[in-house]
Parts: sequence; C-alpha cells; structure tokens
Amino acid sequence: MHIRVINPNTTAGMTATIGDAASRIAAPGTRITATQPASGPVSIESHFDEAISAVGVLDEVLAGEQAEVDAYVIACFGDPGLLAARELTRAPVIGIAEAAFHMATLVSTRFSIVTTLGRTGIIAEHLLEQYGFRHHCRRVRAAEIPVLDLEENGDAALARIIDECRRARDEDGIGAIVLGCGGMADLTATISREVGLPVVEGVTAAVKLAEALVGLGLGTSKHGDLAFPRPKPMTGQFERFAHLIPTR
Amino acid sequence: MHIRVINPNTTAGMTATIGDAASRIAAPGTRITATQPASGPVSIESHFDEAISAVGVLDEVLAGEQAEVDAYVIACFGDPGLLAARELTRAPVIGIAEAAFHMATLVSTRFSIVTTLGRTGIIAEHLLEQYGFRHHCRRVRAAEIPVLDLEENGDAALARIIDECRRARDEDGIGAIVLGCGGMADLTATISREVGLPVVEGVTAAVKLAEALVGLGLGTSKHGDLAFPRPKPMTGQFERFAHLIPTR
Amino acid sequence: MHIRVINPNTTAGMTATIGDAASRIAAPGTRITATQPASGPVSIESHFDEAISAVGVLDEVLAGEQAEVDAYVIACFGDPGLLAARELTRAPVIGIAEAAFHMATLVSTRFSIVTTLGRTGIIAEHLLEQYGFRHHCRRVRAAEIPVLDLEENGDAALARIIDECRRARDEDGIGAIVLGCGGMADLTATISREVGLPVVEGVTAAVKLAEALVGLGLGTSKHGDLAFPRPKPMTGQFERFAHLIPTR
Amino acid sequence: MHIRVINPNTTAGMTATIGDAASRIAAPGTRITATQPASGPVSIESHFDEAISAVGVLDEVLAGEQAEVDAYVIACFGDPGLLAARELTRAPVIGIAEAAFHMATLVSTRFSIVTTLGRTGIIAEHLLEQYGFRHHCRRVRAAEIPVLDLEENGDAALARIIDECRRARDEDGIGAIVLGCGGMADLTATISREVGLPVVEGVTAAVKLAEALVGLGLGTSKHGDLAFPRPKPMTGQFERFAHLIPTR
Amino acid sequence: MHIRVINPNTTAGMTATIGDAASRIAAPGTRITATQPASGPVSIESHFDEAISAVGVLDEVLAGEQAEVDAYVIACFGDPGLLAARELTRAPVIGIAEAAFHMATLVSTRFSIVTTLGRTGIIAEHLLEQYGFRHHCRRVRAAEIPVLDLEENGDAALARIIDECRRARDEDGIGAIVLGCGGMADLTATISREVGLPVVEGVTAAVKLAEALVGLGLGTSKHGDLAFPRPKPMTGQFERFAHLIPTR
Amino acid sequence: MHIRVINPNTTAGMTATIGDAASRIAAPGTRITATQPASGPVSIESHFDEAISAVGVLDEVLAGEQAEVDAYVIACFGDPGLLAARELTRAPVIGIAEAAFHMATLVSTRFSIVTTLGRTGIIAEHLLEQYGFRHHCRRVRAAEIPVLDLEENGDAALARIIDECRRARDEDGIGAIVLGCGGMADLTATISREVGLPVVEGVTAAVKLAEALVGLGLGTSKHGDLAFPRPKPMTGQFERFAHLIPTR
Repeated sequence: MHIRVINPNTTAGMTATIGDAASRIAAPGTRITATQPASGPVSIESHFDEAISAVGVLDEVLAGEQAEVDAYVIACFGDPGLLAARELTRAPVIGIAEAAFHMATLVSTRFSIVTTLGRTGIIAEHLLEQYGFRHHCRRVRAAEIPVLDLEENGDAALARIIDECRRARDEDGIGAIVLGCGGMADLTATISREVGLPVVEGVTAAVKLAEALVGLGLGTSKHGDLAFPRPKPMTGQFERFAHLIPTR
Repeated sequence: MHIRVINPNTTAGMTATIGDAASRIAAPGTRITATQPASGPVSIESHFDEAISAVGVLDEVLAGEQAEVDAYVIACFGDPGLLAARELTRAPVIGIAEAAFHMATLVSTRFSIVTTLGRTGIIAEHLLEQYGFRHHCRRVRAAEIPVLDLEENGDAALARIIDECRRARDEDGIGAIVLGCGGMADLTATISREVGLPVVEGVTAAVKLAEALVGLGLGTSKHGDLAFPRPKPMTGQFERFAHLIPTR
Repeated sequence: MHIRVINPNTTAGMTATIGDAASRIAAPGTRITATQPASGPVSIESHFDEAISAVGVLDEVLAGEQAEVDAYVIACFGDPGLLAARELTRAPVIGIAEAAFHMATLVSTRFSIVTTLGRTGIIAEHLLEQYGFRHHCRRVRAAEIPVLDLEENGDAALARIIDECRRARDEDGIGAIVLGCGGMADLTATISREVGLPVVEGVTAAVKLAEALVGLGLGTSKHGDLAFPRPKPMTGQFERFAHLIPTR
Repeated sequence: MHIRVINPNTTAGMTATIGDAASRIAAPGTRITATQPASGPVSIESHFDEAISAVGVLDEVLAGEQAEVDAYVIACFGDPGLLAARELTRAPVIGIAEAAFHMATLVSTRFSIVTTLGRTGIIAEHLLEQYGFRHHCRRVRAAEIPVLDLEENGDAALARIIDECRRARDEDGIGAIVLGCGGMADLTATISREVGLPVVEGVTAAVKLAEALVGLGLGTSKHGDLAFPRPKPMTGQFERFAHLIPTR
Repeated sequence: MHIRVINPNTTAGMTATIGDAASRIAAPGTRITATQPASGPVSIESHFDEAISAVGVLDEVLAGEQAEVDAYVIACFGDPGLLAARELTRAPVIGIAEAAFHMATLVSTRFSIVTTLGRTGIIAEHLLEQYGFRHHCRRVRAAEIPVLDLEENGDAALARIIDECRRARDEDGIGAIVLGCGGMADLTATISREVGLPVVEGVTAAVKLAEALVGLGLGTSKHGDLAFPRPKPMTGQFERFAHLIPTR
Repeated sequence: MHIRVINPNTTAGMTATIGDAASRIAAPGTRITATQPASGPVSIESHFDEAISAVGVLDEVLAGEQAEVDAYVIACFGDPGLLAARELTRAPVIGIAEAAFHMATLVSTRFSIVTTLGRTGIIAEHLLEQYGFRHHCRRVRAAEIPVLDLEENGDAALARIIDECRRARDEDGIGAIVLGCGGMADLTATISREVGLPVVEGVTAAVKLAEALVGLGLGTSKHGDLAFPRPKPMTGQFERFAHLIPTR
C-alpha cells in the first residue's frame, strides 16, 4: 500500500518531520512517500495561506495519480483542498484535522484542540461544524507560536504547547487533546507522556485511517458530488490542470 | 494484536458470520476472536433488546480483559453498551454504527442508512445526533426484514436490501450507503457490486478502526468521564460485576 | 391512580427517600408504590452503572404490569432504560431527568443542573441533546459528592449542594436550578428556600407529569417505534423476559 | 386551585369550547375559569393576529392577578404573549403549543402537527426551534381550514382534520399527533379514536401541566429575565398597564 | 425613496436621536421620516414592553402605507412585531437587531453584543437562534444601564458601554461588536473610535439594508406565510385594524 | 464609490454579463469595474474549480488594492476564497451566495435555491451551514444545466430554470427563491415576473450590500482572525503574493 502524505506548505524540514512521523506509524506493508508543492507558502496560518496551498495539494494529488498512490493524506490542520482533492481521485483522501477529530471521539466523549496561533482557531471551528464535531470539542486553544517555530525553535515551542495542554486537561472537562498542527507530528509521544491523557495527532491518525480505508476497499465515491470534475478548459498558469484531470 | 468482536445477541450463526467477516478484513498481524454473551436476546430489534444485550456486552468486555484483548468491537448497529464498555477498559472499544458513520463521511459528503426494521430507525437517529452525523445522513431506510431473516432466509433478505439500496442511490442525493445491521457483514461486497457506490459496513469498518487506534497507541481515555467506574457493591444476579471491574 | 416509582439502584434507604418524596407530592387520588430492582448497583454514577441498572428497571416495569400500574417513574437522573421501558407498556413512563428539564423550561428561560459527581455530567449532556434542551441548560455543575453520601452524610452533602446552587444562581444567568440526582428528592424545599429561585427536582416533577398524562388518557404510543418488542427467545439469565413481554 | 384559561381571540363560542374542554379534564379540586380579551381579532391565523392578541392576553393575566389565579393557560397554538405574560406574575403560565409538544415527547419519539392553515406553520416552526423540539417534530401539516370553521362548519372541518391526521400517521414515521389549534380542544377523543394513535391537544395538556406545576409549588421564576418588568410610564391606550403591573 | 424609521417606544427624544442617526447615514435620494406610536411604553426593556410596543409598530406601518413609504425600519433591538409588520405591506421591513447581525457577519467571523440591561439578553438570544446567528455571536453582554439613561444620563452611560465593549474586544475572541439598543444610534462613531474594531449599530445598518432592498426591487414576499392577513373582524380598542389591513 | 466585481471564472462573456447586471443596479455614485482572473477555469462547477478559482480571486483583490477599490464582490455562488480575500483588505468583501441568503431572509421566512448542476448543491449546503441559514433554506434544487449553457444556450437554460423555480414555488412552502449562479445575474427580472414571487440574485444583492457597508463606514475587521496574513515567503508560481500582501 502506497500512502502519499502531502505537506501543503513548502518547508522541506516540515515535510521531513511529517514524513518521518508517518513512516514510523505505518503498518509493515505500507510505503509512505512525503511530498510538498513546488509553489506556495512556507507555512499555513491564515485563510489566505490555506487557499493558496490548496492548489499545491491538488498538484500533488494529480502527481500521485501517476505514481499509483493508494491513499492521500493532507497534512495541514485546516484540511486545505480536501473536497477538491477527493474529486480528482478514486483513492481515499484524508485531512489531518478530520482524522484527529474522528479518532478523538473514539477514545473520549469530549476533547479540546491545542493549535499554534489563535487566528487559526476559526478554521478549526468551521471544520468542526462541517464535520459534525462542534459539540464534541470543548475549546479551541492556541499556544500562540508561529508554525515555523516548531522547526526553528522547537524546545520553547514544545514547552508552550505542553503548558496549554495542561490547562486544557485541568480546565476543560475533557478526555483527550487534539494537536492542531501537522508540524507537531513528532511531538505526540512527548506531550502525551507529560500531560497524561490521550493526545491525538492528525498526521499519524490520518495514515492509520488511510490504511483502514484501503484495507476495506473503500475509496472516494464517484457517485454524486465527489465525481471527477467535468472536463473544461483552464487558462493561464492553471492550464496544466485541464490536461491532467482524470475523467474516469 | 488481538481484537475481540462481540456479537451482542446470542445467535451463534450470526457470531460466526460476523467473526468470519472480521477475520477476512483483518490485517496479517491481527487475531480476531468472536464471542457472544451467554445470556440475552437472539436478535436485537428494539430499545428493549438493546438494553438487555448491553449487559452481555459488558460481561464479554470483562472476560476480554482476562484474555489480553487489545481492542473491542461491539457488533450491533445500535452500539449497545458502548460508553459503559469504554469505562471498563483502557483498550479502544468501537461500535459498528459509529465505525460505519465515520468511514462513510471520509468517502462521501452525504450517506443514507439501509437497516432491517423501520422501528430501529430511531436508534440510528439518536446515534447520529449523539455522534454529530445528523446532517451527513440523508435518510434512514429500512428493508423491513427481521434480523434473523439474514441468517435463515438469506437470499430473499439480500434481494430486499439491494432494492432498498438502489432506491437510496437513486433518490437520496448520496455518495455512499451504510448498512445498518451487523448481520449484513458478509453481504457488503455483493451489495456494493450490485449498487455501484461505496457501501460501508460496520463490523469491517470497526475492525480497521480498532487496528488503527491500537497502531496509534490510543486507548480509551481514563481521564474524565470514561474513567473506571467507582468500586461499589452490586447485588443479586449482577454481583459478579463488583469483583470484576478493574480500578486501574 | 397507581404510580410506580422505580429506584434503579438497590439501596433501600434511597428507595424510601424517593418513595416518601413521591407520596408527599402525589394528588389525593394517587397511590404511590416505590420499588427497587433485586439486582444491580447500590448507586448509579457511571455509564456502566446506568447500563446494569436498566435491566432492573425493565424487571420492575414488567412486575408493575402485573400490578395494574397506571404510570411509571424511573427515579435516576440518567433516565436508565427509559425507551426500553416504554416499549414494554401502554402506560406512560417518565424519567426524572426529562421531567425536571420539561418543568424547568416552563418556569424559566434558562436553567443549570447541579448534580453529584462531575463524571456523570456527560450523561446529562447527552440527555439534554436527545430531548432538545441543550440550549436551555446553561451549565452542568457537580457538587462532587458520591450519591450515597446523600444518605450517609446528609448534612455535609446538603451544604455542598447549596453552595453549588448559589454559584449557579450568581454566575450562570439562569432562572431555575435542576437537581441532578434522585437522591436529592427530599432536599428540594430546603435548597429552594436557601437559594431563592425555583428548584426543580425530578422525582416530584415526574410524579406530577405522570398524573397529568394519566389524567389526559395519554399512554405510551404503540404505533411505531415504541410498540411492544417483537416476541423472541431470550437466553440464559434473561430467559424470563421472553415469557413476560406483552404483545398487545 | 384556580386555573384561568385565556382564549386569546374574541370569539365567545371558542372560549366556551376551550373552557368546557378544560373543565372536563381538570382534577376534582381545580376550578377553571375561561376568559377572552375585550379587544382583539376573532381568530388568530397570522403573525399580525398573534401580535394583537398578545395585548389581550396580558390584560387577562393582569385581571387574573386580582382574582387569585393560581396558573394561566394561553389557549392559542402560537403561544401569543407567553414570555411577556410570565413577567407579570409569579404563577405558572403555560402555552398550549409548548404543553402539547412536551406531552407528545413523553409518549412518542417523534410527532407531527396537524394545524388549520398552512400559513401558520411557520409560527409552529419557530416555537419548535425556541422550545427545543425541532427534531422531535417530523412535519407540520395543515388541513387548510380557517379557524372559525371549527365553530361554524364543524363536521366538515373535523373530516378534513381526520384525513390529514391519517396521512400523518401513515406517511410521517411518527408515534403521536399534536393538534395545532385551541379550537380543536373538544375533538381530541374523536380524532384519537379514528386515527388510532395518541393525539395530544394543547388546552387539555396545558391544564394538566398547570396543575402539576402548582402541585409542585413551582411558579414563574422572578430571578433573572422573567422578573417583573421595570415600572415605567405607558402612554395612550396602554396607560392602564403602568398602574397594573406588579413589582413584587 | 422614503424610509420610515419607527421607534417602537414613546419617548420623543429617542425618536429624534434615532431619526437623526438615520438621516445622517441615508443616501442622497433617501427621505427619512421617524415616528413613534401614540401609545406604548416609554422604553423597551422586557418581553412585556416588547409585546405592547408591537401594536404601536403595526399602527405605524399601517399609517406608513398611507404615506407611500418604500421601506420600514423597526428601531428597537428586540425587533418587536417584525413578522406581523411584514404581513401588512409589500415594502421591506427591517428590524435593527437582524440588520446589525447581518452586517456584523459580513465584516467579521464572530461578534459580541453589548446591550443595556442583562434581562434583555434572552431576547437577543432568541433572535440569534431564529435568524441563524447563534454560533456567530460569542457573547451577549450588558452594560446594565436602563435604556432611558442613554437619553438622560448620556456621558455615564457611554462610559459604561465603552468599558463593556473593551472587555468584549479583549476577552471574547471577536472581530466586531454589535450595539444592542436603538438608543445607541448616535454613539457608534465614538465607540468605534475608542474601541478600535468595527462597531455595528442597527438603526444605521437597517437604513442601508432598506435602501439596498428597495434598490433591488425586493419587497416582502406575498407568496406564502407573509401574505396579507386574512380579513376579519377585530373587536374593542383594536377594531380600527379591521378596516386598515390591506388585502392586496 | 468604487466596487470591484470579480468573476472568479475566466469566461469574458460571463464577466460582461455580471458587470452589466452590477452596473444596472448600482447607485448613481457607484462605479462598477468587473474583472476576471488571468488564470483559472472557464466555469465553476465543482470543489476543484472552486479551489483553483480562489487563487484568481485573491490576485484580483490584490490588484484592486492598487486601484482604490472600496468594496469587492466575489461573483460565484460558492463564494470561493471569501475569507482569504477578507484577510487581504480593509474593504468589505461580499460573496454572492451570502448576499443572496441575507437578502432572502429579509423578505421571506423560508427560501429555496435553484442552481445549475446538482453536484454543486453540497457547496451551497456547506455555505448555508457556515453562514447560519440551514433552516431558512427549504431545498437546494438544480436545473441540471452546465454553467456555460447560460451563455451559449441561453433560452433553453432559462426555460429549465423557470420550470424549476415554479416547482420550488409550488412544492417547497417558501416565500422567495435564490438563484444559485452568478451567470444568472441578468435573468432575475424575467424569472421573477414568470414565477411571481421574490427572486433574489447574488450579484445584484452583493452590490447593494457592498454599497450599504461602505455607506456605514464598515470594512473587514482587522482585529482578530481576519487580520492581514503574517508576512512570509511564498515559493514558485505564488512568489508574487509575498510582495503584494499588505501588512497594515
């Protein structure tokens, strides 16, 4: 089984972090390849960053279709381009936010999210609403660290995240914590040990969900609103897409 | 990895059907054991049947704790005793209704449920509400076949289920179908082939989710409201439980 | 009119407390009988306790059907076995949580719940969601006292409950308080006097609702999903049920 | 116990119908007085009619405060002036729509409403939303008869209502029907007999709920947002209110 | 274009304040007339005040129909009589609460409301629910000042409002503030300057929405449940309405 | 006032249609400029098309910032890139779906949407949920015409849209219809005349809402989660953005 983990930002160090975490969690028969778009923001911390990064995600999915990928993981907590990506393939596509939410509800009745910057909280809120988990999440918390601090200033970032997780554990009436950034993929074990309750991280959760779906023979439905996009001309810098989109 | 699949009813034939389906879908390193309670209804088609069967589920989970089980699956579509079972173990416990709902939302935007008897629709509705999937499910449909007809009158039952699935596909604006009974575990491939869109069945979905959670090192949270029950006397025919419930 | 008040736990002292409170509130023509299951937990403080106690509730309802009971009250705040019990009888069956919620919304726009242990809060939350009162309840609060302390350590327990009720009154923006445990049935007047706003207690509320329904000639609907369970074999220690369930 | 049943419209025949139905259902110790405003619409079939009739309801509540009324019933299915009326008294005030909804959820899992004119359906929908019963009501149906036809053209009206109730029973997947007009108060038994499932009517339901609340010693909360209105001048034709509103 | 701004209370000073604010914001071709009912409360601070004032609103709308009004604004934050008023005219009718909510969601993802008295918070909550903005509003806050203090004690009132707005800005995780009283119509610029984030006020918002609707040629739908009320007798002090209500 | 109407697809004919409709509805002092991205799909009929077109929208907003634009309209019914666009400017940004929803709720209690292809219905559903209008929309209907048929095959497309609008009017219990495609901007008057109830179209609605917001002095909040994106490197074909994003 070949799972392609797409880091939607363009920071190679984060792609490596994510890919390593994915590889460590993967089942014996699973091959992980981690990629990042050629174009896009170096980190994703706003709706704007999300919107731009979605294009890179779509490029990577189409590239994956040439590489016999069995399932895709979109490794940014805003799940950028998720439904669009699903339209491009019969393979399952999993966002790490949805993956973490699903898994957290299986081991707890209520969870809190600890993310990087407060301004991205609204993105998580919108996803919780769309996915159905609004009432399962007690609170969206932010450690107020820029995403790239996870790479460049790791120890200080980790300390702040652990502090916020402890506050979540002690104040929120929860059973589990969801880590709200793909860049935290390598911190899960440490945080869980420090905080003492289940810590659910999306990259690893998504890899296991992808394995599960492939194992079940389930792929993205092509009946109804996730069918392949209707073929049509694309102009300018997106012309390439018109030739790449599968029709069946 | 040892996954215990608990058939909450007491019909051995259905336990075998469920166990076989679970075994076929399990990963190479997964051992499946299928059990059923010593006491309870022969099929589960009402709130009453659900309530009685929950006790058997709890007995089976406590028995599993002596057998080094790594994860439990509750193989009835009403998820009887799910939260109670979670209180009894650090292992993950997965209901087949929740498993199917989670998986269906990963491959489609909207799904319909096809279950056995119309009177059990309310059980599915309540679960959809509690789990957060009310708006992802377009419609709960019933083939109006008693559960045991799946065992005793299989061909006719299958035909009716396929008919109802076709109506769901053509009328509901959906991308996937969820099969609403553990007894349909062996029919998934046939139905999917006949109907032509993803068909999600809970027993198989739950086995893969259980493997995923165990692979992630995630178990039921013991912080908060799923902690082990407070030790206390139990009287009469339930006295056995007082001695069996773990405290840590 | 004969109302059977079922204490779902097996502590006789609590049955007496509940029965006394019910008798005091009953109308002149109403006869109250208070019972408790022969088997089950001595107090109900978890999903596990709820699940076990539901069987005892069903036993008591079936026993009541031999005793010409006109309405049943399930006197535990988690309403254990409520929908299952309704399937077994044409008489009304009222849970004390739902009773208290209904009554509280008739005298206030928003209420808070003060219950015993924090871990049971999730049970109240799920009931609020299922019954439709999620937005009418501002907050679920716990005095953090074990249920049996209400019997064994009454003064200290009362003091803690009153303290929590005062906080609810002063902080929550509410008009009424719902007491979240059947064992508080005899404390309503005292708490209301101390706190100075309507205090709604479920046992008494349920008795009056039961009288109201019987007076209206309304019983549990046998059309649709609360019809009597389909007859079927029950095995093992639950075999008795197969012979007791009415079919019309 | 003195329950004042307020017919919010000014048709004396309907006041008599409502009062008779209330008297027949009342407990032995309950005295029913039925009143109607001196001013207002002869029937209530729109938001406009509702708004005007609310003033009459408030007049009648203030008059009731001079007559030692123990509880009020607002006998129009839109519950006109309900929260305003509650501010004017320590007594309970019950609307017939809310009463019917509460009672219907105690005997069924899902109900439908059968009302007079389709244009009033939105009023019922808004009340369902505010009270929390949106998901308990499958459908709001209209027999498309003007309210006064219930008085003037009773047989034909009854036939149409019964027809619509039968459709509700057969098509909606419900366990009970709620009658959506105070003017149907005397038809309940007939309709229930013809249709064969519980039929919940608001006037009678509200009388029994009022008895229940009075029996519990529960009145409208004066803590918080249902406290008596702040005293203030009222001008013109509403000047009378300034002198009548209680302050404690 | 002629926009009639109806102050639902009977304090002339507030009508002038509201009218001035409306005139200042109106487009060059818009004529503003501000009116108040002949009868009603001098301020609106309860459900009771709302219910009484609704009649005056309806009188003013009917008077407006004689004055070739193109759109109406109901300038009290509870939107009293809104749906009833819509039934009386083909012109658009806008409540200032709904206007402010709509506009706030266009410039922010989440807002808080700062209103006068805490007891009116429930009115705002019910409107948020009915209009669909429950989740867009983080918190309903009160400065705890009586409405007429805005007229009689303006500086102190303004100071308290600004304090509360600052707390909203700093504590609520919002992007905008909605002012919750028509009497604050002239304070918007000052508050916005002091607080430093968008402050949305309903009178001004409603005038611009009214201009927008008229510009679009959109008026209140007469198809369905906002059609003109059915003609019928009205008795007593409301007899006048029977002759005034348009039928087409 | 300068309003920039951005057609997110790259079909010049549609940009002209949209621009003309916007110009016709604009107030005297409003200048409309209509643009389209240099790159992107020729029509938008899927999540994929939406995701790609969002980049073009952001390019056009940044270009607008150089052209002293006072407000932006995103003229595709999926509101592609809406929140991202808001981050880039202090000016208001209005999507045509939200604009139509807001306006429809001001003239009716319930509406239906008539859009082009059924597969885009899910996009409308997600927007309804996020914006709060889920319960105001009775049904999302599709005429099943590709978007470009509006340009190329106008008469046949119009006939199908009118047919679907009539069905919505007759079957859905609504007061207004929302047209679900920017390409229908020039059809509003015709459809409204044929169907006989208010027809709300998003381009025109958004222009008037934009005028309203600018008139109120309200722009996108820069406090909180719509603040300008944090400056950061962008790579590859999106490098241009890094230099264009304003920081204050």
